[in-house]
Amino acid sequence: MGGGMGRSLLRAGHVVHGFDINDKAVLHFIADGGETGALPDVAKRLDVLVTVVVNAAQMESVLFGEHGVAPSLAKGTVVIGCATVAPDFARSTEARLAGLGVLYVDAPMSGGAAKAADGALTMMVGATPEAMSKAEPVLASMAQKIFRLGDRAGAGSAMKIVNQMLAGVHIASMAEAITFAMTQGVEPRQFMDVIPQCAGTSWMLENRGPHVVDGDYTPRSAVEIFVKDLGIVSDIARGVRFSAPLTAAALQQFLAASGMGFGAEDDAAVAKVYARNARLKLPGE
Amino acid sequence: MGGGMGRSLLRAGHVVHGFDINDKAVLHFIADGGETGALPDVAKRLDVLVTVVVNAAQMESVLFGEHGVAPSLAKGTVVIGCATVAPDFARSTEARLAGLGVLYVDAPMSGGAAKAADGALTMMVGATPEAMSKAEPVLASMAQKIFRLGDRAGAGSAMKIVNQMLAGVHIASMAEAITFAMTQGVEPRQFMDVIPQCAGTSWMLENRGPHVVDGDYTPRSAVEIFVKDLGIVSDIARGVRFSAPLTAAALQQFLAASGMGFGAEDDAAVAKVYARNARLKLPGE
Repeated sequence: MGGGMGRSLLRAGHVVHGFDINDKAVLHFIADGGETGALPDVAKRLDVLVTVVVNAAQMESVLFGEHGVAPSLAKGTVVIGCATVAPDFARSTEARLAGLGVLYVDAPMSGGAAKAADGALTMMVGATPEAMSKAEPVLASMAQKIFRLGDRAGAGSAMKIVNQMLAGVHIASMAEAITFAMTQGVEPRQFMDVIPQCAGTSWMLENRGPHVVDGDYTPRSAVEIFVKDLGIVSDIARGVRFSAPLTAAALQQFLAASGMGFGAEDDAAVAKVYARNARLKLPGE
Repeated sequence: MGGGMGRSLLRAGHVVHGFDINDKAVLHFIADGGETGALPDVAKRLDVLVTVVVNAAQMESVLFGEHGVAPSLAKGTVVIGCATVAPDFARSTEARLAGLGVLYVDAPMSGGAAKAADGALTMMVGATPEAMSKAEPVLASMAQKIFRLGDRAGAGSAMKIVNQMLAGVHIASMAEAITFAMTQGVEPRQFMDVIPQCAGTSWMLENRGPHVVDGDYTPRSAVEIFVKDLGIVSDIARGVRFSAPLTAAALQQFLAASGMGFGAEDDAAVAKVYARNARLKLPGE
């Protein structure tokens, strides 16, 4: 994702420094016109820092860890945070950066690696007007659609986690239905011929159902992502005393998929839990 | 639904006799060009009998009950069954009618009253080639899309119940997400502005979400329909030892909605269960 977003920024004429724990990714980025450097030194001269990591722990490490970059940023720099995190984490990040004179834009994203490469992401943004106005040219170079959801960090992360909650439940419900259908003599291919044209369809069903039909679990997005994201939802829900039984059930199915050894496979591999529980043979098995 | 389907048949030039427990509905149908009569007498002369009722018990009563019509049908008549029923019920209906020399088309439908009136339903059909060829002109006058799913009754009902399973889970997941979003400061209207453009969307979310936003629970389809249909799925799943945790969780939420007194309201009223469980105030409350 980060590589595609960096290249979108280059195409829009920005000067972009790339950093990654994978050195090869950085070398490719330089070959494509990017720059890199010694991070504390580069950090001082940045207008905007975009963090594209997997979760709150990585964002914590990048900004405030032992080699964290936040203390090196000049006052008035804007940090854009793109990971899916709890809204509370986004709010506390905004507050801690404000203590350093640094602005924060809570901007989780949707769309995957292909849309990142095209500068066609959807971003759900919460930020102060000052942070927003400084970040806008950078956001506009990476995203096709920007939802401005509130004047504080947390508003973007709230909408993103709600979207992930639905996405996870709908992947699990696709898996539950496509395997239940098999017990009733409906083959997965027939299921995918009919259901997308009926009221039972969802974006995730249409996107992930073909992975089950083809028996192809190459990870576009992995089971572990939904163990994480439905875990975040469950933690938040427990904290505010919100009963979320479908989210809870879906999380258990993703946990079972991970427990069976499919954590790094495509999230559609949650269908294997249903299949094993009912001794069904999925396509490709 | 039945009135609209009868009128679609009239427009296509068929001679149609209408029967309903509501006399007014029959009078309106006659005013629109339909006919009626004494059922056992009319039954003898029918080529095709279309049953449009709510569940298996009503279909049982219409065909085989005390005043059931099946024994009056001439050999070679085709019965088209449109209710959502268990595939096993469809198969046994086919067998019992075959004992009377009567053919059966298992043809549950999707689309609602508006599409019924336009002759634009979707039908999921399982039937022998003989039954199918006799029924085809009638089906084609009522449906825009006909999925031919197998050469026996049960195949249509299997796909229909799988669709209902997804529909019910997706209505409940919309309700779970739109109320969870409220706990995170996201208003229902903002939720409906953003989520339909993201990967978390579903057909049901886009169709039923506005009912929550508007606080309008006029029943387009009622909570009790999903108590029934998710109940059918649960019964079938238990019978074949298929673990369906999302379906089970969604059924409990619809049961709670009915238990709270919302059984006759629009199925989106399942959101009231989530709201009451978390002391949230939905729009219109």
